[in-house]
Amino acid sequence: MHRVAIVGGGFGGLLAAKGLARAPVQVTLADRRNFHLFQPLLYQVATGGLSPGEIASPLRHILSGARNTSVWLAEVTDIDVDARKLILDGRELPYDTLILAAGSRNYYFGKPWQDAAPGLKSIEDATGIRSRILRAFEAAEMEADPEKRRAWLTFVLIGGGPTGVELAGALGEIANDTLRHDFRSIDPAESQILLLEGSDRILSGFPPDLSEAAERQLIRLGVRTRTKALATDIDSTGVTIQVDGAEQRIPAHTVLWAAGVQASPLGAILKARAGATLDRSGRVMVEPDLSVAGHPEILVIGDMAHFDQDGKPLPGVAPVAMQQGSYAAKLIKKRLRGDAIQPFHYFNKGNLATIGRRAAVADFGVVRFSGGLAWLTWLFVHLMYLVGFQNRILVLIKWVFDYVTRNRGARLITK
Amino acid sequence: MHRVAIVGGGFGGLLAAKGLARAPVQVTLADRRNFHLFQPLLYQVATGGLSPGEIASPLRHILSGARNTSVWLAEVTDIDVDARKLILDGRELPYDTLILAAGSRNYYFGKPWQDAAPGLKSIEDATGIRSRILRAFEAAEMEADPEKRRAWLTFVLIGGGPTGVELAGALGEIANDTLRHDFRSIDPAESQILLLEGSDRILSGFPPDLSEAAERQLIRLGVRTRTKALATDIDSTGVTIQVDGAEQRIPAHTVLWAAGVQASPLGAILKARAGATLDRSGRVMVEPDLSVAGHPEILVIGDMAHFDQDGKPLPGVAPVAMQQGSYAAKLIKKRLRGDAIQPFHYFNKGNLATIGRRAAVADFGVVRFSGGLAWLTWLFVHLMYLVGFQNRILVLIKWVFDYVTRNRGARLITK
Repeated sequence: MHRVAIVGGGFGGLLAAKGLARAPVQVTLADRRNFHLFQPLLYQVATGGLSPGEIASPLRHILSGARNTSVWLAEVTDIDVDARKLILDGRELPYDTLILAAGSRNYYFGKPWQDAAPGLKSIEDATGIRSRILRAFEAAEMEADPEKRRAWLTFVLIGGGPTGVELAGALGEIANDTLRHDFRSIDPAESQILLLEGSDRILSGFPPDLSEAAERQLIRLGVRTRTKALATDIDSTGVTIQVDGAEQRIPAHTVLWAAGVQASPLGAILKARAGATLDRSGRVMVEPDLSVAGHPEILVIGDMAHFDQDGKPLPGVAPVAMQQGSYAAKLIKKRLRGDAIQPFHYFNKGNLATIGRRAAVADFGVVRFSGGLAWLTWLFVHLMYLVGFQNRILVLIKWVFDYVTRNRGARLITK
Repeated sequence: MHRVAIVGGGFGGLLAAKGLARAPVQVTLADRRNFHLFQPLLYQVATGGLSPGEIASPLRHILSGARNTSVWLAEVTDIDVDARKLILDGRELPYDTLILAAGSRNYYFGKPWQDAAPGLKSIEDATGIRSRILRAFEAAEMEADPEKRRAWLTFVLIGGGPTGVELAGALGEIANDTLRHDFRSIDPAESQILLLEGSDRILSGFPPDLSEAAERQLIRLGVRTRTKALATDIDSTGVTIQVDGAEQRIPAHTVLWAAGVQASPLGAILKARAGATLDRSGRVMVEPDLSVAGHPEILVIGDMAHFDQDGKPLPGVAPVAMQQGSYAAKLIKKRLRGDAIQPFHYFNKGNLATIGRRAAVADFGVVRFSGGLAWLTWLFVHLMYLVGFQNRILVLIKWVFDYVTRNRGARLITK
């Protein structure tokens, strides 16, 4: 039977596996983690609104009904392209078709800022950031010196894309609402939350009027946005930024990174073994059918793939990965039947970015809106795509509770 | 104003703080962690049924309405009994009355078994045990050698008290129900789950007929109980036990410890600084009013205290700690008014231990029962005492879901 190996259980890999569940193929999905993570809600774990278990589902459980599918908890260390074999932790997995969907990781442009400014890609990142934010308020409560206290109560988000905006908005709510009655020496509302963006506007993937709307909504949540601001140095005491050529130091103990990602290092392996071409972010340049040039049996999807459409590469977002995963499954089934397939084409259903309580922006091409309606749309869409019926119910209940009480129950400092 | 320092935000410390919320005193509650943990449900986190956030609540949030109460995230390093000051991470906290409620920790009788056989006291313990259990099934799925596979599928619980019984029952359900369709090479139902107990029956705090009932219910869940079995050696490959003088080796990669606890090391500090007497488990011998002999201003409550009633020490369970916490608050208020107080007396409302699906034992003195009714009673009591209305709703929904689907959604292997 035709053997399909899928690397990565994110949106792309999972949709590919689901698409092949009833096909006459033998599927093995390999992932380093035993769960699918619903990344779009990860910032809510980082800010104490949700628990890890509510946005993650065991891959084995999701795929337990696909009797042709095995799940391997293992990490790919090499690809033997000629022999068509994956090497995973010293074990070999032969394939006839390979789907690479290993996603992306934080990227610091070669700077050693990883510890001083953690990014948000994994469950551990999220619980680590959660602890860091909560510890900063605890440290401020214990600090008598006003200047030191101010550094503890300054939060800097680097990168004005959707993740930076979401984190900034959530921090604004934590400081102004959630923690309002929790401290005796400090007033959390005195926190400074700064969102730094290198280009001339935040949410640059949206039309300019929505960027402006997002900035206005952030101001209402107590977040200050600074555009054309580049971080030139980050350490545990603060950030140095360059604005209009002048350098400025911001003392802050909590700096979070949302400024850049890089494709999985599997791209580099593919370059070495199959002569694949990579772009500057390490993404693999793919053919119109998502395959690697000269290797029709290797498909690359999701954040790992560079696919040009309308003159620019598709963004690294969940809907792209999902449509590419489904396409990869369809391609394999058509090939087995000897049918031809149209090139991949991404259908953009619209873009949403949330900011906070009744604050979001929505771009559906001709229709654009912001505020409460955009926020409700965002809530609805994310609930619908969340994997697992139980998780949907639990998250819905938490959101209703937290909306009414302005609380965030999962405010745990863990190791 | 009279200053009260409370060390520990478990059941005892929290009830003391709540009891003093409206009293004319100034309260400081210090804890190493920023949350109250509902320990009786910790085993459900360790077995993937609940998430940490659902059984923990931020101490600041619980006590935000008590305007006379400050919360310190700090660890006590010393007590200056003469000057009436706590030393916390180098910072001083003066007190007029001190309440020590720092609980207990795992105790291995001086053996180096901590890594090979983790115990269940903290959130990190629970998520660590959860990862270990799930990893064992993953390793078995990848293992071709039947003997090695068997060692991965053997789970040994050491200690037949309530925690050992709960963990064993949950493991039985995981192996036989939860994971039934998840694997392709192994059948999780082939797992061996062994509950080892040193004395002649499990749940020795219950009447003998309920111990027997518990054992029968465990057998139905696939758990084998071995009494009079003492662990003499534990390492990462298995356990050596002694039964009737003969030694036997059980190859197993997953060994969990539920055989003994020891009081917080603050007891030893109190012995050195205030001449307190400790029992064999490190608990402080307390006077009839829970104070330390010669130091009426120092009260010790909960797992840290040795209080004799009806000729034997009270057990280290939540209801004892709660009643002692409330008593401590009452004592302080009466003293301030110059009133006398009766000695502490524990009112035992009954004992419950859960085993699994529709399986539990209940001992209300004259009334004793086991099975479905005991299980429902256990569910109801634990929901009622769980801290936080939101947590109650979420846990109830999870339980209903998991009862119907036999799933456990929080099966995450995390670092």
